[in-house]
Amino acid sequence: MSYNSFGHLFRFTTWGESHGPALGAIVDGCPPGIAIDESDIQPWMDKRRPGQSRHTTQRREPDTVRIMSGVFEGKTTGTPIHLMVENVDQRSKDYSEIAAKYRPGHADFTYDAKYGFRDYRGGGRSSARETAARVAAGAVARKVLGDGIAIRAYLTELGGVAIDRDRFDDAAIDANDFFCPDPVAVGEWESAVDTARKDGNSLGAVAECIATGVPAGWGAPVYAKLDAELAAAMMSIHATKGVEIGNGFEAARITGRENADEMEPGNTGPRFLSNNAGGVLGGISNGDTIICRTAFKPTSSILTPLKTVTRDGEAAEISTKGRHDPCVGIRGVPVVEAMMALVLADQMLLHRAQCG
Amino acid sequence: MSYNSFGHLFRFTTWGESHGPALGAIVDGCPPGIAIDESDIQPWMDKRRPGQSRHTTQRREPDTVRIMSGVFEGKTTGTPIHLMVENVDQRSKDYSEIAAKYRPGHADFTYDAKYGFRDYRGGGRSSARETAARVAAGAVARKVLGDGIAIRAYLTELGGVAIDRDRFDDAAIDANDFFCPDPVAVGEWESAVDTARKDGNSLGAVAECIATGVPAGWGAPVYAKLDAELAAAMMSIHATKGVEIGNGFEAARITGRENADEMEPGNTGPRFLSNNAGGVLGGISNGDTIICRTAFKPTSSILTPLKTVTRDGEAAEISTKGRHDPCVGIRGVPVVEAMMALVLADQMLLHRAQCG
Amino acid sequence: MSYNSFGHLFRFTTWGESHGPALGAIVDGCPPGIAIDESDIQPWMDKRRPGQSRHTTQRREPDTVRIMSGVFEGKTTGTPIHLMVENVDQRSKDYSEIAAKYRPGHADFTYDAKYGFRDYRGGGRSSARETAARVAAGAVARKVLGDGIAIRAYLTELGGVAIDRDRFDDAAIDANDFFCPDPVAVGEWESAVDTARKDGNSLGAVAECIATGVPAGWGAPVYAKLDAELAAAMMSIHATKGVEIGNGFEAARITGRENADEMEPGNTGPRFLSNNAGGVLGGISNGDTIICRTAFKPTSSILTPLKTVTRDGEAAEISTKGRHDPCVGIRGVPVVEAMMALVLADQMLLHRAQCG
Amino acid sequence: MSYNSFGHLFRFTTWGESHGPALGAIVDGCPPGIAIDESDIQPWMDKRRPGQSRHTTQRREPDTVRIMSGVFEGKTTGTPIHLMVENVDQRSKDYSEIAAKYRPGHADFTYDAKYGFRDYRGGGRSSARETAARVAAGAVARKVLGDGIAIRAYLTELGGVAIDRDRFDDAAIDANDFFCPDPVAVGEWESAVDTARKDGNSLGAVAECIATGVPAGWGAPVYAKLDAELAAAMMSIHATKGVEIGNGFEAARITGRENADEMEPGNTGPRFLSNNAGGVLGGISNGDTIICRTAFKPTSSILTPLKTVTRDGEAAEISTKGRHDPCVGIRGVPVVEAMMALVLADQMLLHRAQCG
Repeated sequence: MSYNSFGHLFRFTTWGESHGPALGAIVDGCPPGIAIDESDIQPWMDKRRPGQSRHTTQRREPDTVRIMSGVFEGKTTGTPIHLMVENVDQRSKDYSEIAAKYRPGHADFTYDAKYGFRDYRGGGRSSARETAARVAAGAVARKVLGDGIAIRAYLTELGGVAIDRDRFDDAAIDANDFFCPDPVAVGEWESAVDTARKDGNSLGAVAECIATGVPAGWGAPVYAKLDAELAAAMMSIHATKGVEIGNGFEAARITGRENADEMEPGNTGPRFLSNNAGGVLGGISNGDTIICRTAFKPTSSILTPLKTVTRDGEAAEISTKGRHDPCVGIRGVPVVEAMMALVLADQMLLHRAQCG
Repeated sequence: MSYNSFGHLFRFTTWGESHGPALGAIVDGCPPGIAIDESDIQPWMDKRRPGQSRHTTQRREPDTVRIMSGVFEGKTTGTPIHLMVENVDQRSKDYSEIAAKYRPGHADFTYDAKYGFRDYRGGGRSSARETAARVAAGAVARKVLGDGIAIRAYLTELGGVAIDRDRFDDAAIDANDFFCPDPVAVGEWESAVDTARKDGNSLGAVAECIATGVPAGWGAPVYAKLDAELAAAMMSIHATKGVEIGNGFEAARITGRENADEMEPGNTGPRFLSNNAGGVLGGISNGDTIICRTAFKPTSSILTPLKTVTRDGEAAEISTKGRHDPCVGIRGVPVVEAMMALVLADQMLLHRAQCG
Repeated sequence: MSYNSFGHLFRFTTWGESHGPALGAIVDGCPPGIAIDESDIQPWMDKRRPGQSRHTTQRREPDTVRIMSGVFEGKTTGTPIHLMVENVDQRSKDYSEIAAKYRPGHADFTYDAKYGFRDYRGGGRSSARETAARVAAGAVARKVLGDGIAIRAYLTELGGVAIDRDRFDDAAIDANDFFCPDPVAVGEWESAVDTARKDGNSLGAVAECIATGVPAGWGAPVYAKLDAELAAAMMSIHATKGVEIGNGFEAARITGRENADEMEPGNTGPRFLSNNAGGVLGGISNGDTIICRTAFKPTSSILTPLKTVTRDGEAAEISTKGRHDPCVGIRGVPVVEAMMALVLADQMLLHRAQCG
Repeated sequence: MSYNSFGHLFRFTTWGESHGPALGAIVDGCPPGIAIDESDIQPWMDKRRPGQSRHTTQRREPDTVRIMSGVFEGKTTGTPIHLMVENVDQRSKDYSEIAAKYRPGHADFTYDAKYGFRDYRGGGRSSARETAARVAAGAVARKVLGDGIAIRAYLTELGGVAIDRDRFDDAAIDANDFFCPDPVAVGEWESAVDTARKDGNSLGAVAECIATGVPAGWGAPVYAKLDAELAAAMMSIHATKGVEIGNGFEAARITGRENADEMEPGNTGPRFLSNNAGGVLGGISNGDTIICRTAFKPTSSILTPLKTVTRDGEAAEISTKGRHDPCVGIRGVPVVEAMMALVLADQMLLHRAQCG
């Protein structure tokens, strides 16, 4: 048990607060001999980095990652890889309001309830800034998985507006500020986000993450199921409220006949005629594309005044100023990818351990 | 890491196959001095037990649980509690078809892909019969939690037909064969299940589980989040494809203003004016009702012939005879309750460890 | 964390008390496809079995092991292997003295101090009868390691009388009641044990366990060191007070020049000219014989009256009647072998996981 | 499983190499609200710091520790505490000899055997410089344990010369360069170390660590035994070859009557008339002083030329120049103390978790 670690064999531990001097991740259990340097990690950091469009928080963090250990002469040594990111733009502001009042939708009250007090500067440890460490660790996981496995995430819904899957265009995803694969939906989302921001309001989103190239056989039948690990991984991200594998809740609404993924002989084993399962059967990968969707709630920090209580138990009102994402789900996309990579790297090692 | 264990401090490990001599669970880390005997466990076993109505499998298993260790003079001793259930009704049948062909929707192919071969008798380890061990362990967890925490699950959807929450009647849940809290929906569900069974088809369902009386402060802010643990717990159950906390995917579709659970002063801390969060904020319980929903896919074993491949890679057809639940979600209800109890007992001990 | 489990990937969990109906071990993480049945396990059980000579306890337990799960058609399936042993000879006796008074050297007082009460029948969970489960699990570990790795333990000291290593005869070990490799020492040990038994006294012993055929590279440099795992494994056995790797405490008494294991080119890598290291350098196996010694204290249950206190805090005297080993170290030999096998099997999988 | 972590609930993870930019420890699971700042940690760092007398390595490292996270307004927040130490005196030297030849007694060969290559600069991850991170983490553990528990280590043997326990003087320990409690032995040790250094040789030592004030009841009866955890902790330290609890190997050489720690009524429970057990019975603390001894081999880096092989498998000779401790056991003393503190803090939380 470790409250700030994830994974069994490919295991990472993160540290750091929103307004401390730095944050980081230790990646333990990484196979040796993998070529990696900071330039393999930084692009993923940049993808998550704030302040890149008007649709995300204006906090300016370069998020420059530094490899502090575990890599020698350009290759992993099998020892812990410490990845550190300095916090630069900790705007010196007055936190007295957050310190005294609990922000609805935030961990403010629950932290106090658990620990008796908290670091109230920007949410402290509960800030989604922690996800920078995940993205750094995830970049190492991608290297472990190798080029044969491709991981890709994008939003399929924003503010209740879903993409049209018939317009799905892989090339579009990185061509807009929303990781949106539907060029038509981009426009709708843009105005929705602009409206929300102007209204002092916020929006939720659904991120879908797929992994191709995962061989059949990763996972385990009971408690270390591949889908259970993915569920834990995604639900550990800030602001998430739901996780689906394959067709997810839709599976509960169709019949067994409709839901069945029939098989026919393929080149390297069975080929599935559909993928309602999302690439996982009985907790074990089936060789098809892994599909996982995660629901992000709307940003809890909004300008609209909300009823709350103070630490002293008095009724109060709060409107959260500061630099916030109008839709945290957007910057959740690289985080979801990182968690997928981290789960898969761990499962790869677990499978190799037991089955050689 | 343990492939067949769940939990950190209150940790259980299950063993056994569908058609072996017995199955069981070892519960480790249980606090000492808790009064318990078989009669505290058997009622939950009976709730999950097959063959109680025409809507579930006709396999006849008494599922009589026996405490083999860890209890002395009627109280837990703090040492491992082994709970064993003998398999009685292993109908001697011909498994040659399952052995030779992969059943769609089952772990047949993925087991073979992972381990090289499998126990094909009734699914072996991948059979949902494993959940009997969870329910037994869950009964111990309930004792650890004590009477102040109430755990309750029911179906909110079956075959795509949702309950009407305005008709929610707690007393109805145990008065029908579907754990349905809406007396009107019962009739619709009954005919849907009857139709599916006659058609050689099957249906999915959504189970909601709530826990009341959980104090604020259980959970952790990053990777041992209460909601992440619940997600892993529920997604580890057979046939599940999705998990939601609170309003779940709905949160992604409403605005921050609509989603905010405002607070006012209450008797013992803040009182929430709504519970979209499902009782968890920043991974830590907030004192409100914990709400978790789980999607069960329709039973994969159906009489309708489906395309598949044989172990030798030849195209084939299969229709799964045998005694199967037309809707596995129904018997999933006591399992979902057990997993909620097991997660909460673990979190209780984790919280006590760190925060005294 | 699990109080009754050992190992990371090849992980076993034991359950059961001295005077309960049965005891057992669940072996989780076992690679699939390994041929095994009860006849592979029973010989090791028989080696540990009580009542085989006048030098061990006269409790008569057949210790018949039964594989309850995880093996199908004679091969491991990769799922949990439950090994169960029924308790047969629970002599119905009066435990009121043990229940009321703390036996010196036993866990009686500390159990009460920890848990508030205890199963006083024959020591309950603290009885060395638990080691039967380890021996069963160890037999599976041997199968995982395969024939290339040989594990062998024997006593090098009993009652302070050490063997003469110049007389070391491998064939002698199984030809006497003491697992003694020195045929001359056997006689001395025999009379020492006879004397102790007649005096109502008891003796300690030192067990050495060696493993040959372990390839270089198993272990890890910092906290999962092979020697640290062995130390934990051996110190977890009942009545142990010390563990040494290689020359152990002797290393502290000689110079660096004397202690150095020089190397020369060998057939498959460096060949060591001596083995003070006991086959482990920097926590990782070096390809040489693994050597581990464990000190067993004299049996705490002796007929000689000793001062103690009652549960109520009154001064008292106790002399432990019943059927006890005059030297528990003797029957410790197969247990030490089992723990060595279990640690090595775990390390084999851990190494394969990280390094392929 | 984590190769670079130790502990279950109070768990720390270390990172860093001998010649990297820095090293550190993340302490996870620390209870909240404990007052701590760098000044609570630095004194322990200073105790381990090299270059303080002619009897230790002349590498000059200030070992200044910096708290990077987990502490807010002078108190622990319950989130991960990252302690970082910069490496300052990485003398730019020619490592080509170490890179090409395996140093006897070092992990050079085994690292290569495991990982395929290694960071050869000063031993990389296998350098005892890693223990600086343990000492930092141990300082936090001491704070968790509080003032009621006192931990103290010292050498009882150096180069085969044991202290005379009749001359044991607690005040002497910090008054000499050897943590020697026997003022008379100091002189002998001094000349022994001087001789060894001049001879290009080295010496081993035995460190004893005691903890007073530990309440009865910490530990567990089977695999999480307090003594098993201590054994793993001590054997994980660089250059250790043996661990004893209480009278250790001596227990194997005396009779049960001699070894028995009799009890009489005390003020707060049984009082033990002797402490051969070293404060642990059946894996659980008995309220008496915890006693643990650890054997350190002589420093493997010596100037005397030794036979070895090159990475290419050729015969060679090596004499290790550089700045080395003539007796690593001396600086092992604060490390042994740190590991005792870390094990006890973990056990304290584990006990609280299960037993409230």
